[in-house]
Amino acid sequence: MIYLTRRAEFSAAHFYHVPQWSDAENQRRFGKCANRNGHGHNYTLEVTVCGEVDAVTGFVIDLKHLKDILQRSVLDDFDHRHLNHEVAEFAAKVPTTENLSVAIWQRLQPHLAPARLHRVRLYEMPDLFVDYYGE
Amino acid sequence: MIYLTRRAEFSAAHFYHVPQWSDAENQRRFGKCANRNGHGHNYTLEVTVCGEVDAVTGFVIDLKHLKDILQRSVLDDFDHRHLNHEVAEFAAKVPTTENLSVAIWQRLQPHLAPARLHRVRLYEMPDLFVDYYGE
Amino acid sequence: MIYLTRRAEFSAAHFYHVPQWSDAENQRRFGKCANRNGHGHNYTLEVTVCGEVDAVTGFVIDLKHLKDILQRSVLDDFDHRHLNHEVAEFAAKVPTTENLSVAIWQRLQPHLAPARLHRVRLYEMPDLFVDYYGE
Amino acid sequence: MIYLTRRAEFSAAHFYHVPQWSDAENQRRFGKCANRNGHGHNYTLEVTVCGEVDAVTGFVIDLKHLKDILQRSVLDDFDHRHLNHEVAEFAAKVPTTENLSVAIWQRLQPHLAPARLHRVRLYEMPDLFVDYYGE
Amino acid sequence: MIYLTRRAEFSAAHFYHVPQWSDAENQRRFGKCANRNGHGHNYTLEVTVCGEVDAVTGFVIDLKHLKDILQRSVLDDFDHRHLNHEVAEFAAKVPTTENLSVAIWQRLQPHLAPARLHRVRLYEMPDLFVDYYGE
Amino acid sequence: MIYLTRRAEFSAAHFYHVPQWSDAENQRRFGKCANRNGHGHNYTLEVTVCGEVDAVTGFVIDLKHLKDILQRSVLDDFDHRHLNHEVAEFAAKVPTTENLSVAIWQRLQPHLAPARLHRVRLYEMPDLFVDYYGE
Repeated sequence: MIYLTRRAEFSAAHFYHVPQWSDAENQRRFGKCANRNGHGHNYTLEVTVCGEVDAVTGFVIDLKHLKDILQRSVLDDFDHRHLNHEVAEFAAKVPTTENLSVAIWQRLQPHLAPARLHRVRLYEMPDLFVDYYGE
Repeated sequence: MIYLTRRAEFSAAHFYHVPQWSDAENQRRFGKCANRNGHGHNYTLEVTVCGEVDAVTGFVIDLKHLKDILQRSVLDDFDHRHLNHEVAEFAAKVPTTENLSVAIWQRLQPHLAPARLHRVRLYEMPDLFVDYYGE
Repeated sequence: MIYLTRRAEFSAAHFYHVPQWSDAENQRRFGKCANRNGHGHNYTLEVTVCGEVDAVTGFVIDLKHLKDILQRSVLDDFDHRHLNHEVAEFAAKVPTTENLSVAIWQRLQPHLAPARLHRVRLYEMPDLFVDYYGE
Repeated sequence: MIYLTRRAEFSAAHFYHVPQWSDAENQRRFGKCANRNGHGHNYTLEVTVCGEVDAVTGFVIDLKHLKDILQRSVLDDFDHRHLNHEVAEFAAKVPTTENLSVAIWQRLQPHLAPARLHRVRLYEMPDLFVDYYGE
Repeated sequence: MIYLTRRAEFSAAHFYHVPQWSDAENQRRFGKCANRNGHGHNYTLEVTVCGEVDAVTGFVIDLKHLKDILQRSVLDDFDHRHLNHEVAEFAAKVPTTENLSVAIWQRLQPHLAPARLHRVRLYEMPDLFVDYYGE
Repeated sequence: MIYLTRRAEFSAAHFYHVPQWSDAENQRRFGKCANRNGHGHNYTLEVTVCGEVDAVTGFVIDLKHLKDILQRSVLDDFDHRHLNHEVAEFAAKVPTTENLSVAIWQRLQPHLAPARLHRVRLYEMPDLFVDYYGE
């Protein structure tokens, strides 16, 4: 069993806002992140798949295939976008790093068989990241 | 003569738009960066000052002083902001990395004497940065 | 279940010395690290907490809260200190990266509920780090 | 139980080739990696061992010992080598990152007792790495 | 005047060999780099261009144009290649980092007007790089 | 003319203290750095030499020679040392990054001919570094 990780980058804008809270409450809880014009990040995404190594090719997964899935399932929709305004999952959900990693898992998971999605790691900044294992 | 460089980070949203161009022309020239909802980056700023080393302290500049100036002159206005909508210099100017570095130079330059501002380096992404020397 | 990791830095001096050994034995076993004047490192600490994502905020833990705990429980005592002379845990214990990570776990663990401390990772150098999971 | 990770680097050449396939098939499946002159990488290897912390030394493993084993078991044979032509394991196996990590595990595993080899992580590029846990 | 730097990566194999020297002399002078099977690196290339900022676009150079030139003039010929056997400049010249940076300068310089090529920086390893300014 | 840069690391302890000032004044001016037990850093040193490329070897300088000089002139005396107590230049001078870079220049400069020492860059932390060009 080998775990293979591919890193990718996307640049996106977002802000934090809970509609059932007052502006003052949003400001108090989310600080600078509550600014509704949005701010942004260079997100670094690490996708880990696992599986048996193919005895002929030495591959767990074809890397071009993995790259294509990442591009079509995540990057095409997230890169150079405003997450609150343009990505369906965040129409009614705060685009925190936590929620982003779950959304990315759900987008990738159906497309990786026979390899298995093991982990989604997402860095919002070099000093802050989350891991999601699908459970 | 010693050159001292301090690195700082800010997260901001922006987009590229020339008002005298049609939407199609903006799209053609700026690609994904033309998306008017904005996208964003973790900018990395490196500010270099130069001067003589003080014979007693061994300092070119007091680091707390430099940090304060960076905070008040740049970070307070740029961090967690939408550059097109909230930073004065970009009301009528495209917030490219080039234009950002000139704006940052102009904000910092008056406050560093007796040290001298030598260079502003700004990374938009780890693989893209600009340098401005004030001339 | 989401795992969130926050990175922080501290700069400290230390040396390795076992009092029941002769100086020659300390030198033989610890090499350059046995120098009793001390040397030092920029330590990089990664603290991972885990828990359920709050359905309203999208957070596993409030980041300002996490940052405060890190500051008060670890950084205030470790940053810009000589670990052998100024940090209680190392009065009678060698401040190896292994022992440091256990001490940091014990300082952080009581303060993170309802999130749970999952891992303390400590880099002494970019090419050397340890992980401790509390067991 | 502490997990300690040591990072090391080696520079090597390789190419991907399955002898039972035609050149066209190798090219179609492996793309640029099929070039039989070879290309190369700066590989970054992270070796994680685990064990109890020694009550006297504060060590999981003596770092000089670990470094020696890495040098003799892996780096002496892999660094500045052409993996296809000079490393025994790849005489009849494609030197993918997956297969490399398994070979490195097998070379290190016998020499680390009483510590236990926990993980071999190998980066081929900063954006691509594999993990192998020996099972 | 703004200086803009774009980073790119290529993976290549090479070895050092002076044909007028004996094998023993090559070995003595070049050590492990003399292995004629070749070894390899992930090279990191930083290309710096300079020029006036366009008053309308805020650009020194169109980034898509710069990326195309890098791809066609350098990466297509260098990436996943064996430099000694496949790149014309090194048929009779040792592919040191020094010589590589001069070759890259000569390939890029004719294509960047009206911007001006300012510097080619090439990293062979993270701890070794050269700069060439065309003079 | 090629500029070649070699990076090296050393770990050292230091503190800031001006003997003609009171303890309170040292504390006020140097903050946490005034702690006389010392704290420490992983310093990253980048040494840049320049010269003509040798037409036969393709080298500006023999890298083993450069590495030896770095080791003997700087690392042997600075690595795993307490700079205030063990390095001659800082018996009566504050070991700031500025003063360290000048001391390193003076130690290296006599040994590099026919190449010429161009720059000493010293990082105290990833976000703070100084450059010294010998003038």
